[in-house]
Amino acid sequence: MGVDLGLLVGRMNNTTTLSASEYGAVVNMNLFVALLCACIVIGHLLEESKWMNESITALVIGLCTGAIILLSTGGRNSHLFVFSEDLFFIYLLPPIIFNAGFQVKKKQFFRNFMTIVLFGAVGTVISFTVISIGAIQIFKRMNVGSLDLGDFLALGAIFSATDSVCTLQVLNQDETPLLYSLVFGEGVVNDATSVVIFNAVQHFDLSRITTSDAFNLIGNFFYLFVTSTALGIGAGLLSAYVIKRLYFGRHSTDREVAIMILMAYLSYMLAELFYLSGILTVFFCGIVMSHYTWHNVTEKSRVTTKHAFATLSFISELFIFLYVGMDALDIEKWHFVRDSPGKSLGVSSILLGLVLVGRGCFVFPLSYLSNLTKNNEREKITFRQQVLIWWAGLMRGAVSMALAYNQFTRSGHTELHGNAIMITSTITIVLFSTVVFGLITKPLVKLLLPPSTNMSRMASSEPTTPGRSFIAPLLGNVQDPEAEPGQNGSGLYPSHLRVLLAKPSHTVHYYWRKFDDAFMRPVFGGRGFVPYAPGTPTEQSVHNLIPEESSS
Amino acid sequence: MGVDLGLLVGRMNNTTTLSASEYGAVVNMNLFVALLCACIVIGHLLEESKWMNESITALVIGLCTGAIILLSTGGRNSHLFVFSEDLFFIYLLPPIIFNAGFQVKKKQFFRNFMTIVLFGAVGTVISFTVISIGAIQIFKRMNVGSLDLGDFLALGAIFSATDSVCTLQVLNQDETPLLYSLVFGEGVVNDATSVVIFNAVQHFDLSRITTSDAFNLIGNFFYLFVTSTALGIGAGLLSAYVIKRLYFGRHSTDREVAIMILMAYLSYMLAELFYLSGILTVFFCGIVMSHYTWHNVTEKSRVTTKHAFATLSFISELFIFLYVGMDALDIEKWHFVRDSPGKSLGVSSILLGLVLVGRGCFVFPLSYLSNLTKNNEREKITFRQQVLIWWAGLMRGAVSMALAYNQFTRSGHTELHGNAIMITSTITIVLFSTVVFGLITKPLVKLLLPPSTNMSRMASSEPTTPGRSFIAPLLGNVQDPEAEPGQNGSGLYPSHLRVLLAKPSHTVHYYWRKFDDAFMRPVFGGRGFVPYAPGTPTEQSVHNLIPEESSS
Repeated sequence: MGVDLGLLVGRMNNTTTLSASEYGAVVNMNLFVALLCACIVIGHLLEESKWMNESITALVIGLCTGAIILLSTGGRNSHLFVFSEDLFFIYLLPPIIFNAGFQVKKKQFFRNFMTIVLFGAVGTVISFTVISIGAIQIFKRMNVGSLDLGDFLALGAIFSATDSVCTLQVLNQDETPLLYSLVFGEGVVNDATSVVIFNAVQHFDLSRITTSDAFNLIGNFFYLFVTSTALGIGAGLLSAYVIKRLYFGRHSTDREVAIMILMAYLSYMLAELFYLSGILTVFFCGIVMSHYTWHNVTEKSRVTTKHAFATLSFISELFIFLYVGMDALDIEKWHFVRDSPGKSLGVSSILLGLVLVGRGCFVFPLSYLSNLTKNNEREKITFRQQVLIWWAGLMRGAVSMALAYNQFTRSGHTELHGNAIMITSTITIVLFSTVVFGLITKPLVKLLLPPSTNMSRMASSEPTTPGRSFIAPLLGNVQDPEAEPGQNGSGLYPSHLRVLLAKPSHTVHYYWRKFDDAFMRPVFGGRGFVPYAPGTPTEQSVHNLIPEESSS
Repeated sequence: MGVDLGLLVGRMNNTTTLSASEYGAVVNMNLFVALLCACIVIGHLLEESKWMNESITALVIGLCTGAIILLSTGGRNSHLFVFSEDLFFIYLLPPIIFNAGFQVKKKQFFRNFMTIVLFGAVGTVISFTVISIGAIQIFKRMNVGSLDLGDFLALGAIFSATDSVCTLQVLNQDETPLLYSLVFGEGVVNDATSVVIFNAVQHFDLSRITTSDAFNLIGNFFYLFVTSTALGIGAGLLSAYVIKRLYFGRHSTDREVAIMILMAYLSYMLAELFYLSGILTVFFCGIVMSHYTWHNVTEKSRVTTKHAFATLSFISELFIFLYVGMDALDIEKWHFVRDSPGKSLGVSSILLGLVLVGRGCFVFPLSYLSNLTKNNEREKITFRQQVLIWWAGLMRGAVSMALAYNQFTRSGHTELHGNAIMITSTITIVLFSTVVFGLITKPLVKLLLPPSTNMSRMASSEPTTPGRSFIAPLLGNVQDPEAEPGQNGSGLYPSHLRVLLAKPSHTVHYYWRKFDDAFMRPVFGGRGFVPYAPGTPTEQSVHNLIPEESSS
């Protein structure tokens, strides 16, 4: 699909008259950028609504535009350019995941690390198994076309990939920090698992799998997980060290910001180079950068990186949803299934049911397992939270689309009936789960965790109210998203108090803090370990008003 | 060349094993990003040097890398990907020019507006004429291959295009604001002129040009200039109006930043759509956004946009210079001229001489003309300044490269001897002028305008020193680049005093200010016309410390 991107970047130079197709590409690009602007404005206007969010706005605008294009081209076309895996994996996904790592509440994430890995690795395998077996059992009786075992297993992998992008839009880190951290963290680990499973499906002869192959797969997963994480951490630490040593802030905010962007992108591309999971790498790179590098730069660089990364991520997300909305009406895909609309609908419903069951099969048992390891009653995942975790991870998105295109359009055999049905079913499920499940999530959170129970927002302003303190350890350092990482939020929870409160299960965290303060921060910089850089008056005044805590 | 970009974005998805060529693309992309990082770090380390700047660092690193690749591939290849006009005109140039408009000192620019247009339009035509006639006269006697009249005229257009990117790097807006504004402003207008001339050369039958054709061309230029400017201003005002009306700041800094980026890019793409000069459009869009939109957003958005745009521009510039350095050693181009190295060198020298003469032919006469219109002795361009204007606009860069590729590699006839020589000569001139002229510019500025004369930097801190005040009107509102647009700098020059001092030649500016305050700012927002948005503590504190001036 590399060539498809040519449409997007079709020759549009200043100097010569454009050919008709090139001119068309310019028109499409203009329309697309204008639609992105419209999404932002309309999304803003609809923000007060408790049902809508920007993903759904973008999807709906995409659908409407697709319908208009479909009508105006007489049913020939519905999208502005062809879906490209490259565009998605090289340009759109990295900023989203990096930003998620950069803005994630680190304490919350690491406190739930084991649960997240359990959900993301074991859970995905369970979901994959359930969906694959279900698909084999049901579809073999339905005569959906020439699908072999590899295709069924690929279906399992495709529909096990949760959409972390959509989750970010639907769940709110400040309102439901535990849910956000579990579901989103799971989504990131889930990607590594999906990569391994999908590659395994495509490369192993699965009808003759041996025990050693299985161990090979498990080993492969651990290798991928560890090396990807290490690469991300390494890139983050390198950027921190370089900026601390050379002290770019002496002269140029722009250089600091540039080196942070480039190093983050480099980590992602390096991961791709070594066949690792770029998503895991760039996620951990974001975490390390927000913990060390971010504290080594000037005040202006901090504000700039914080919002520039968020903006890039925001635009990428809108781009994806707008695109998926437009792509859904692509007539070519529906062309092949027009003689059997009922079958296509049936397949979609069955797959959707399998997704629901597959996710249920691991969320509840694994939550139970996770609760067993927690001595502290307050840290256990309640049943209502389990339901929300199950629900919030049901959305399938661009990752599923990309994998489905990869599996079912290879070597140009889209014409095969079975493949066409799988593609249209994937689109149906992505649209349905994003719109319907997405719409219901916000009200469901309000229903299951009403404000009196879901007190995370209050926790930061009323940390000492006795009746509510039981939530505090769960929430970690609840900070204003604007203040994280660093400035003033964590003063609300003196660290010694927190360690005391939560000592049994947080000893690892305690020793990590000691190590961090004794070795890591002096070398790589971080809050309280970087001399203040004199700057402009604005910078100075901000600094003077918010005294830096020495170590916290 | 649209397909060449495929190399850069070659299919690099997560899910399947990459083919050899795709893997090569990933390797190249990694190497390129790593080199960009190296450029930033090394450029920073060399910043103290009075000879070096980041462009030259990037060029030198590019050359070294090219040499290494050349050796390691056994002389087959020297660059990581093929030069693409699209990449340059669609992705790299817009952020650079937009940022220039966004950060330009507006008063300075508009005060010299007539001189800038004179240099950029009339000057470019003079330069084009001199270079074309010189090339026809000399090359026809040299037997350089099958070049027709169109090729010679194209050469004139190619080498009349000054490189505004390089100028931005060599001249300092704070140290030499008048020079910067004249040379850079000229470079932007120059682009529109080059577009018209180059298109004219390619589309008109120039051997039979009539008077009506000539008027047609002049009319075309004015149309292009006026519509491009109007489009840029319109896009900027629309963004200001949308943000002021909907007040995005109420909730989201990211939305504001996103809409500014998208609207700016949309203006550029719209200009391309209507066959206008995208560079002029995006430049004026930047100016309007910094005058209106920038004041309508939150404090955080201001810091973010200021530095995010500068960073994008910085990375794009590095990208271009690194690429040009690498491309210079491309063995294919030199292959065709290896049998006549002397001739290639001769052609380059002659063209370089023509560039020097052609620029001299308009800078000095037009400066004289411009001085005639100025009653005020202080506003005239001194001879030393004229020499610097002449010198600083001699650099030829990526625009010349792109035009040369367009003219001399069309329909695949690079094999023609004459065309090959023109391509290699262009590369030689771009490299030589950027490195040698670029290296000499900084010392030359110091020599011709020593600190005692070149007091612009001091003017902002010592505005009342009598012996220096004569420079003040020339400098307009010299502000700290960090504070512009807006905050506190212009307080140094109360507007009534400035109007009084410079009344004769600034009546237009005076009436514009009245119109701006009475109509434009109340509608589109701007400094002093937007109610303060309550924000986070940091935002609040900055605001309280630097009280907003009511109108200035």
